[in-house]
Amino acid sequence: MPSYSAPTKDTQFILHDVLNVSDAKIPGYDELERDFTQAVLDEAGKISSEVLSPLNAVGDTEGCVLENGIVRTPRGFKAAFEQMREGGWPGLDMPEEYGGQNMPYVLGTAVGEMFSAANQAFTMYQGLTHGAAGAILAHGTDRQKAAWLPKMVSCEWTGTMNLTEPHCGTDLGLMRTRAEPQDDGSYAITGQKIFISAGEHDLAGNIIHLVLARIPGGPEGIKGVSLFIVPKFLVNEDGTLGERNGVACGHIEEKMGIHGNSTCVMNYDGAKGWLLGKEHKGMRAMFTMMNEARIGVGMQGLSQADVAYQNAAAYARDRLQGRAVTGAENPDGPADPLIVHPDIRRSLMDQKSFVEGARAFILWGATLIDRAHRAGDKEADGLVSLLTPVIKGFLTDQGFDMTVQAQQVFGGHGYIEETGMSQFVRDARIAMIYEGANGVQALDLVGRKLAQDGGKHVMGFFDLVKSFIKDNAGQDEAYDSDFLDPLKAASKDLQAAGMYFMKNAMSNPNNALAGSTDFMHMFGHVCLGLMWARMARASRAALDAGTGDTAFHETKLATGRYYMARRLPMTATHLARIESGADTVMALDAANF
Amino acid sequence: MPSYSAPTKDTQFILHDVLNVSDAKIPGYDELERDFTQAVLDEAGKISSEVLSPLNAVGDTEGCVLENGIVRTPRGFKAAFEQMREGGWPGLDMPEEYGGQNMPYVLGTAVGEMFSAANQAFTMYQGLTHGAAGAILAHGTDRQKAAWLPKMVSCEWTGTMNLTEPHCGTDLGLMRTRAEPQDDGSYAITGQKIFISAGEHDLAGNIIHLVLARIPGGPEGIKGVSLFIVPKFLVNEDGTLGERNGVACGHIEEKMGIHGNSTCVMNYDGAKGWLLGKEHKGMRAMFTMMNEARIGVGMQGLSQADVAYQNAAAYARDRLQGRAVTGAENPDGPADPLIVHPDIRRSLMDQKSFVEGARAFILWGATLIDRAHRAGDKEADGLVSLLTPVIKGFLTDQGFDMTVQAQQVFGGHGYIEETGMSQFVRDARIAMIYEGANGVQALDLVGRKLAQDGGKHVMGFFDLVKSFIKDNAGQDEAYDSDFLDPLKAASKDLQAAGMYFMKNAMSNPNNALAGSTDFMHMFGHVCLGLMWARMARASRAALDAGTGDTAFHETKLATGRYYMARRLPMTATHLARIESGADTVMALDAANF
Repeated sequence: MPSYSAPTKDTQFILHDVLNVSDAKIPGYDELERDFTQAVLDEAGKISSEVLSPLNAVGDTEGCVLENGIVRTPRGFKAAFEQMREGGWPGLDMPEEYGGQNMPYVLGTAVGEMFSAANQAFTMYQGLTHGAAGAILAHGTDRQKAAWLPKMVSCEWTGTMNLTEPHCGTDLGLMRTRAEPQDDGSYAITGQKIFISAGEHDLAGNIIHLVLARIPGGPEGIKGVSLFIVPKFLVNEDGTLGERNGVACGHIEEKMGIHGNSTCVMNYDGAKGWLLGKEHKGMRAMFTMMNEARIGVGMQGLSQADVAYQNAAAYARDRLQGRAVTGAENPDGPADPLIVHPDIRRSLMDQKSFVEGARAFILWGATLIDRAHRAGDKEADGLVSLLTPVIKGFLTDQGFDMTVQAQQVFGGHGYIEETGMSQFVRDARIAMIYEGANGVQALDLVGRKLAQDGGKHVMGFFDLVKSFIKDNAGQDEAYDSDFLDPLKAASKDLQAAGMYFMKNAMSNPNNALAGSTDFMHMFGHVCLGLMWARMARASRAALDAGTGDTAFHETKLATGRYYMARRLPMTATHLARIESGADTVMALDAANF
Repeated sequence: MPSYSAPTKDTQFILHDVLNVSDAKIPGYDELERDFTQAVLDEAGKISSEVLSPLNAVGDTEGCVLENGIVRTPRGFKAAFEQMREGGWPGLDMPEEYGGQNMPYVLGTAVGEMFSAANQAFTMYQGLTHGAAGAILAHGTDRQKAAWLPKMVSCEWTGTMNLTEPHCGTDLGLMRTRAEPQDDGSYAITGQKIFISAGEHDLAGNIIHLVLARIPGGPEGIKGVSLFIVPKFLVNEDGTLGERNGVACGHIEEKMGIHGNSTCVMNYDGAKGWLLGKEHKGMRAMFTMMNEARIGVGMQGLSQADVAYQNAAAYARDRLQGRAVTGAENPDGPADPLIVHPDIRRSLMDQKSFVEGARAFILWGATLIDRAHRAGDKEADGLVSLLTPVIKGFLTDQGFDMTVQAQQVFGGHGYIEETGMSQFVRDARIAMIYEGANGVQALDLVGRKLAQDGGKHVMGFFDLVKSFIKDNAGQDEAYDSDFLDPLKAASKDLQAAGMYFMKNAMSNPNNALAGSTDFMHMFGHVCLGLMWARMARASRAALDAGTGDTAFHETKLATGRYYMARRLPMTATHLARIESGADTVMALDAANF
């Protein structure tokens, strides 16, 4: 059975030595003293390892069962959910006014990574509630907030997001679900939604669905879509639960993974709902939450990669097979451990250097969210809007690849469900798909975000890399050649790709779009390169000052060198592909595939 | 439900227009006239699409069930297996003497690709039998051949390979299963073998296990391992089945995929067995079959990628979502089909250009096997021995990635088991692991095959690429720049990597081994580049001559151009990684992972 150990030391290093959170001059950040975050992370790590992780395999094996309209979650989920509620975890970064603890998003993200690594399917129930509550917080009337938020913040009630319909996923303009205005100011919602995560289950007293639907007579397409609050049970004036609303789960899907989370077909049959935000502005209301939701999914890519890596590293240290080519390292044993073999190392270093780089990237992204939301920093807002598709797309693609590599370390044993490595791969797979498939992220990045506000944000990003290099060059030759030179080269590749798009997309936009996935990956590599350069600088400083854990910082530097030497050069191939343009991509008639 | 359509046209093109099989001057190849192979492939395609493909999902859903020592295969497998037997498919490339049809291996491979694409788990039952029969054919006494082969060639009895034990996979020197010599010349085999595909099932009257075991008193390690024939039922003098042998299936594994094939723990308890080949030479006997078995697994990588690609292309043509950025292509419909979007194209072109390149590569490899075995060509033997780890490792890694890409085209629908895309991914995953995990393939390539016979074979490969370029350059400017220039560049990268190994592995062998997986992939890309250059030349010639199907050849050229422009440049990144050496890979203490 796999195990999970929370990366508290690394998270602390990133929060304090790299991001200097408690000095960051963001409202709420001064509370994030080293001791405080240590205590929170320790507690979150404990519940992750001891409560959520042991339930991960149970969730996979048992799955969710629909019987007579009721969905039963796997054994143990209910008690664990209650424990999470009692610990106040769901409301960690929610306003105190509604029962939350008002901590910054960055801390919620650090903690969320642990929960998700320990049990992704389980953590989705509260993650979706968080997203739905966030939408109500941003767009609800005072009355709506008072009515729904306290119980959603605590997860006494959970939430969902209802977008997809059988014939429309990405293209929500095709939506058919309709909302008929009623005399009492409510709407009657009718239609079918599919792929609704946590749509029905037995973990909470009520489920608050946020549903996109079309008010008859409104504009065609995406501009005629509104957002509604549709509870499973109506709520009486006194706050007690009233009658069952006209919404039911018709089917739960058999999926490749995340079996512990119910993926529901939801049937709305004149269900009572209330408009959230403005008429026909449903997409805008959804999009408010999109950056956070997408960063949350990027975090899932990281989290599965980390837990899979941890188990692969343990197996590689433990399993005796073959001898080191440079001489036996375990001469008294029948064989050396797997970890002596260079190709196993290569794989583990791929994983480790990804995981730690990704963690820094996500936490940096989360500070930008906080800076935007809590300090009203427009620049941070623009930058995180640019980086969001990269965080989501790059980290989930790569995160999946890393779980596959971790599984590979186990050889045949990795293919057997018993070791749990298959589950990590199967669970990680969904993150490339939901919350906007990664191709859509790439399209968002290249088709929308690059040019946003006249290209200001991407220019800002390049400036940021440039000034980092300038500020840190010339002090340490090894650091310059190991970290800054590769970062400079990769960033130059990224700029060249951007330049190619600018020159060639005007004549044919396909010249940009055909390179969108490559660009997103390239961008991701540059971000991880920047993160490694920042982490290396912090570790170098700690070593020079003689503070902190020497082995930790030496390991950090060595892992960073690996990333710069072995992973970052990928930008060259991405650039070559992009510069080959759209012609070869678009050459065939559809019939000739 | 997914469907499968056999790629007969493409296979015919490769066999006849690219490999010119019927003129190849290999015994048996003159029978491979265009009409003849067309008839065989048509028949194989028919049974693949109509019989095997519909059983693929059944096999996945039902899996195999062990009850009271008996393994029940999924519904319909028995009848289909009988149909395959009646059609004589299992013995297609086996000697007539034992009931086979004596066709060349290349034809068996072309047909095997279809069967495997339609139903990998099912096809393994006969594939493993083929491998076991091949070992008996190569190493058995006349009496053994007469006793076992006729029924194995027809698949009336099936076969298995028993290598792995709980504590040893790759490192077979750690093996513990023992074989005690008996007075009657047989051996009593005792021990436990795991991960035995098709170890027990209800498809055949008898199962002939080939088992590696240790004769007490023999050399330690891998040099003391012998191979034994151990039937499930002993066979009487008159050929009828006798008593049950001391071998039983103790457990079947729950796996990520290939559920339709039983993966067994086999317990040997004094089972009667007979030595196959010489005492203590068991590994050599196993290795005889290794090239074919590994090419067979490489073929599985291709086969799953092809069937997944076919379904993704169909979905992309059918599913309406969004509008082409260059203007609506389906203006009368609610949206354009997915296939108008450049990133979907990019993905489908990745898949298509891989599948067709891989098919050519495997069929070329199969002709080298035939040349070696049927014409005693030592050069072909050396070359295919060099290429085997590339075929196995590169094609299964890439094949898996392509099934993941195909699944991605389906968005959320790809994650639902109902569409079948998840099964392709889960089934494809095993091919990267069994028959020598891909890291072991890379090690075999770099640690053994490169230097084999003084590096003669790799030099031979480079010469072959060089002469191909020389022979074909200067006739057609577009062909030179689209195909030969990229091939030259990629081949130069590969040579530079080999040069790096030569210069740096002497001082530290890890400098080569840390780059082994990159080298294997690089080599694979160069091989696919060569195949595309050969296919393009053949299509160009057909177009110039005005023969054949214009659309087919134009599509072939366009697909090849894509591969050369978008996939082949990957060699640059592999080279950069390799040239960064082992230092960053090996830097950490095992405890610091």
